[in-house]
Formats: sequence, C-alpha cells, structure tokens
Amino acid sequence: MPVNYAPRTPDEILPVRGVALGTAAARIKRWERDDLLVVALTPGTQASGVFTRNRFCAAPVTVCREHLARRRPVQALVVNAGNANAGTGAKGLADARAVCAAVGAAVRCAADEVLPFSTGVIMESLPVDRIVAAVPACAAALAERNWAAAARTIMTTDTVPKAASRRTAVDGVDVTVTGIAKGAGMIAPNMATLLSFVATDAPIGRDLLDGLAREAANASFNRVTIEGDTSTNDSFVVLATQQAPLAPIERASDPRAAPVREAIAAVALELAQAIVRDGEGATKFISILVENGRDAAECDRVARAIAHSPLVKTAFFASDPNLGRILCAIGNAGIADLDPARVSFWLDDVAVVADGGRAASYREEDGQRVMRKPEIDVRVALGRGRASSTLWTCDLSHDYVSINADYRS
Amino acid sequence: MPVNYAPRTPDEILPVRGVALGTAAARIKRWERDDLLVVALTPGTQASGVFTRNRFCAAPVTVCREHLARRRPVQALVVNAGNANAGTGAKGLADARAVCAAVGAAVRCAADEVLPFSTGVIMESLPVDRIVAAVPACAAALAERNWAAAARTIMTTDTVPKAASRRTAVDGVDVTVTGIAKGAGMIAPNMATLLSFVATDAPIGRDLLDGLAREAANASFNRVTIEGDTSTNDSFVVLATQQAPLAPIERASDPRAAPVREAIAAVALELAQAIVRDGEGATKFISILVENGRDAAECDRVARAIAHSPLVKTAFFASDPNLGRILCAIGNAGIADLDPARVSFWLDDVAVVADGGRAASYREEDGQRVMRKPEIDVRVALGRGRASSTLWTCDLSHDYVSINADYRS
Repeated sequence: MPVNYAPRTPDEILPVRGVALGTAAARIKRWERDDLLVVALTPGTQASGVFTRNRFCAAPVTVCREHLARRRPVQALVVNAGNANAGTGAKGLADARAVCAAVGAAVRCAADEVLPFSTGVIMESLPVDRIVAAVPACAAALAERNWAAAARTIMTTDTVPKAASRRTAVDGVDVTVTGIAKGAGMIAPNMATLLSFVATDAPIGRDLLDGLAREAANASFNRVTIEGDTSTNDSFVVLATQQAPLAPIERASDPRAAPVREAIAAVALELAQAIVRDGEGATKFISILVENGRDAAECDRVARAIAHSPLVKTAFFASDPNLGRILCAIGNAGIADLDPARVSFWLDDVAVVADGGRAASYREEDGQRVMRKPEIDVRVALGRGRASSTLWTCDLSHDYVSINADYRS
Repeated sequence: MPVNYAPRTPDEILPVRGVALGTAAARIKRWERDDLLVVALTPGTQASGVFTRNRFCAAPVTVCREHLARRRPVQALVVNAGNANAGTGAKGLADARAVCAAVGAAVRCAADEVLPFSTGVIMESLPVDRIVAAVPACAAALAERNWAAAARTIMTTDTVPKAASRRTAVDGVDVTVTGIAKGAGMIAPNMATLLSFVATDAPIGRDLLDGLAREAANASFNRVTIEGDTSTNDSFVVLATQQAPLAPIERASDPRAAPVREAIAAVALELAQAIVRDGEGATKFISILVENGRDAAECDRVARAIAHSPLVKTAFFASDPNLGRILCAIGNAGIADLDPARVSFWLDDVAVVADGGRAASYREEDGQRVMRKPEIDVRVALGRGRASSTLWTCDLSHDYVSINADYRS
C-alpha cells in the first residue's frame, strides 16, 4: 500500500496530441499482464533524456544515448518490464537494436528513431523473439487514451501505476503535459529501476528541451531516494510533439517557456514523490529539508546521510522517536568542519535538537506523536550559511527485506 | 546466533600482567546483569586510542582524547553499557568527568589518568549517580582473571561476548596480548557502538603504541562494516603495561616490535571479525576483496559500495544468486572512468562476471551453491592496476529490521 497515494483514474490522465500508446503481453516473465509498451510519436517530435550515472549502464541506455546524440526527432519508444538487458555485453546491445528495428518496421520509421527501455532482472538475456513477436500487437493497439494502460505495463515491484497530468495555457492556447513512471526502489538494481516518460504537445525545441529535462530531473527524480543505489537502467525522457498551435519555443528566455517548464516540473515532481510513496515496503513518506548550509552540495550530503542511514529508516518504520540516530547521521555526512554546537533539528513543528544538544522543550511524547504520522518533515539547520536542499525518502521495513530477499523465488 | 563464532572460554582468555578488571551492576537500564566495568592499570601503563570520525562524538570520546593528549601514563578505564552519553552537550562532558573522578578516587589516581567509555542510547542523560555508586563494587571486584566478565559487561545488542588472546615470544620472554570488543552494528548510533580494548604487557613506548594502534585499527575495525554508519562513540584503545621483563621497545624499527605488532593485529582482526559475525541479524559472513585497482582507495570504495548496498545484502540473506546487484553496486562506486568491459568477479571459486558480462562458464546452480554457504568470498578485479583492498561485512535480514525497529519498546 503506497503512503497517501491513489492511482489516477484514466479520466484524470490527459492525452497529449501526437502521442499514441499500445501495450501487449510479451510474456517476458510468467506474468499474465501486459509487459510491453510501444509509444508512437507524431513526426517531428523532439526528445531529451537524462540517464543513470551507473558505470554499468544497461544496453538500452547506451542505445538511447546514441539515438539522442543524433539530435533528430524521435518516432517511437519501446519499453519492456521483466528484464533489464543490463550486464549483457555486446549481445545486449544487438538485442536492444533488434527491438528498435522491429518497432521501426511496425510504426514505419528507422531503427535509430526509436528509443528502447528495459526494466527487470540484470544479467539475463533479453527474450528478443518474444518481444519482437508482441510488437505488432502493441502497434495495433496504439491510441492516445492508453496512458493508464501504459503506466500499468511498465510496473515491476510497484504496487500501483503512476501517472500525472497538467494543463496550462500558453498565449491562450491549451498545452498538456502528461507523464508516467515506475520505480519501487530508486535503484533497486534489479526489479526497481526508475523509468519515466513525460510528454507535452508544446512546440519546444531540442536545446530548450534538454535544459527543461535536466532541470526537472534535478528537482524531482534526483531528489528522491529509496535505499541509495542507482540502477543500471534509470531513464527519464521528455517528449515535445510540437502539436499545440503555437510558434516554436526555442529559448529559456522566451516568456512562453515558463508555464511549460512549470508544468513539466510539476508532473516530474508528482511522479517522483509517487515513486517514494510506493517505495518497496514503504510505510512512511519523509521530507528532509537541510538549511543554513554553506552550499547546496553540503546540505544535500547531510540530507542523503539521513535518508540512507538504515538506523534512521528503521526508527521511522517503528515510529520510534529514537532521534539520536538522526544526529549521528548528520555527524557522518562528511562535513569535516561542522560545528555540532550550531546544529539544530525539528520533526514537523517539534524542536528536537537545539545548538547541538537535546532541545530544552523536547518531550518524548511530542516526538512520538510526529513519528506515528505517515508523512513526516525533518528539518535540519546547520548554522553555517544560507544554502538549503530537500530530499524525499521512505522508511525501511520488514517488507523491504521480504521483497528484495524473496522476489526471485 | 553469530555466524561461525563461539565465545572464548575464560581459560582461553589469557590475563595480562598489570591489568585488573572489575564489574558491577549500575542498573543503567532495566538489566539484571553487570553493566559497569572498571579496568585498573599498573602505574606506568601507556595507552593509545583511535576514535570515531563522527562530528557528533560522544562526551566520553572528547574526554578520552583530552586525557590521551597529555601523553602520560593511564591508570584506569571505565566503561558503561546502556547509555552513550552522546548528544548531551556540556552536561555530558561534566558527567563523563565526574565518572572519571569517582574511578580515580576508587583506584587512587587523578581523574585525568582515567579514560571513560560509554555505549547505549544517544541523547539521554548519563545516570551519573548510579554509575558513581557502583564504582566501589567494581573496584572491590578487580582481578586479572576477569576478562570474560568484562567482555559480557560491555555488551549491548551483541548476542555473545567477544574476547581474543595471543601469546608470543620476544627475545625468549613470553608476551601476552588480550582484548575484548563489543559491536553488533559497526555503527548503530544507538545500541551498537564499537568499543574495543586490547592490552599487552610488552614494554611498548607511547609513540610506537600510537603507530601500532592506528595500524591495527586500519587493518581490522576500519575494515569491517555492518550497515555503513559510524557511531558517535566508536573507540579502540591499546594498552601497554610494561610488565614483561624486557628493555623498553620504542621504535617500529626495533626487531622486537614485530612479534608484538603481529599479536596486536591478530587480536584486533579476530575481534573485528567477531563483531561482523555477531552483527545485528547477521546470517552470513562476507569477505570482499577488490583487486587490480589503481590505488587502495578506489578498491575500498568499490568494496564499500558492495558491502553497503541493501540490495546486495538482502540477496545474501536470501541465498539468492541475484548477482547483477553486485555488478550494479560496482557501477555505483563513483569511479568515473571505470571501464565495465574490464571488470570481472567471482563468488568463491565461481567466475560470475568476466570482462563486464556474464562469464561463459557461469551456471546459476554454481552461484546458488556458494550463496547458500554461511561464509562467502566475493572477489572483484577492476582491470586497471595493482592495488587491492579487503572488507568484511554481513547480510541484511528481517532480524536486522526487528532489532533496530523494536529494541526500545
């Protein structure tokens, strides 16, 4: 059960002009459900991507990067769940290209106009034959209203599909932004790759789209963490179909770029937070704000030290105001000249630590009250500057261990 | 149940001339057992310490550092379990000094000749009165044969006491090295601080002792990890009572230093590995060797990325040869120019990945066979140099979550 997140109904997911989606069952694993998605894009669609920094990036990530490096429009995406095609060497690259070629044949475009994505088990060969055989069924099912089915198709250990939409006005013209994502562990190298696809009909040029994609990723997917790893397959792609009746928007300084930027950022943030709310075994949604740092990077280090500490995460799971663990995590963030005597922190409105020691006003029952909530704000003040950083994470539960210890059996 | 570790019998723990130990029940928590240890040292005993790098170091760590900075002999140690005296500000420092004064009064030395240690819950006041009241009972119980009782007294979430001894000959004279340790999480900021005390009767001078302590810590306690945090209280102290009938050993170049160095290193390594074997919820003991790196630091980064990945740790717990997770962790170690195509790894004798892809000879049943063992060697070759690094860790089990989620209730 995700923390305060219900999947959007199909009616809440707005179609995007120029984007058609089709799903089918390729039976990559022993699943009954659809596991293959083809997205057909109207000619002239621009695409930009942000990908994993893991040195062992998956074959489809390498192929996506190659195809995007040509800086030409993209005609299709293809996404399979159940197999990551990672750690598969030269054969994996050939497999990813074969899938692109099959999709190109089905939607009538070149193989290098297709972007491939995979999520699932690492180090097992992609069942290319079954995927290629299911591509025509995906192509036959293509429709603009299929976003909800697409969101379900790309799931792995996710318990709910994730989609988000915004409509905004640009010079009086309606512009739509809709996206889907799958996650479960921000980085479970295995079954919990993060994939997200966000599309708009706004006529955004490629250079500007690159900036918007990077910006949106930095403020959303790069600010959530389940357990601190980064998968081999993480991919975030933004598509602009150019179908809204507007003159091209090419520069960030164009005032018409602002509402589109905001809508893309809002969709990305909603999807990123949905991934945390549906994190593997998550029972709590934790927002960590670290402020008064010298620079954003050191605030981010402290936020990640808290978010990744198994001891902090298990205390949240237990609703135990065992708050020395947060203090300890701050001390472990690697800020060599941090002055403990200037550090304070709060749980929601409750001052826990003031000037490096237990706050005089702190009472365990107040900490207990906040820790019982499903959503908790942790605010840390480092007392050394004006920078800040925010991160969203979840707790570490028995179910996290069960999901990750047992899922292959 | 620790992994392949049984506590030493009292007979296996050799007394060290000049070291007397006494324990008592100060009832710091609602425990029936002894929780306070005083170690009385013969006059002239040299001491050296290696302490936590956590910026929120506990009050006793600050006081230990001060007392050791005087570079004079030490007359006593005092250790309590159940309360870490960390995150306690100025009052915590005063409390630690008050305990030193009480011990000084009991064993007839100055307060600054006493080193204090605490382990337990963070951010709660040390119950000084109960500790001071129990000091005379510790003093009355002082005896050279009390090492086993001392090892039990300092336990927190440890399931077994940990002690190790070596006897070696220096110029035909018997020299003894005996130590105790407690751990459970290398760093559970709460109940699982690492404390270790190793004593020898060898006449080692302070400068040499500093080097031997640092060296032993780097090859033992700094090479084990349970979940990757570092507690506020971690302390490793080496004592040299000077009681063996030998002329002083002052320099590392003195050939008589070698056997003592080896014995201290062996005791520290045995204790450090015992801490991992008895890690919170541990069911597997994992040795990680990373080799063919450019320098030891990058090998260490890769080893820690593997050891700290919750996904790798849960796969070990499940005995699941889900080995893409190890590949993914290697890719996440932050080596920007790592060439995946040169990376190989083995599980015991089984080649899993060769040149960046699944080894041709690899069969899942071979991986399964190794993963079922209670002790597993992971060997990674980075293919870029001659440096190497070793780390010992354990798996992440349901019991880890239970211990850390539930222990305060």
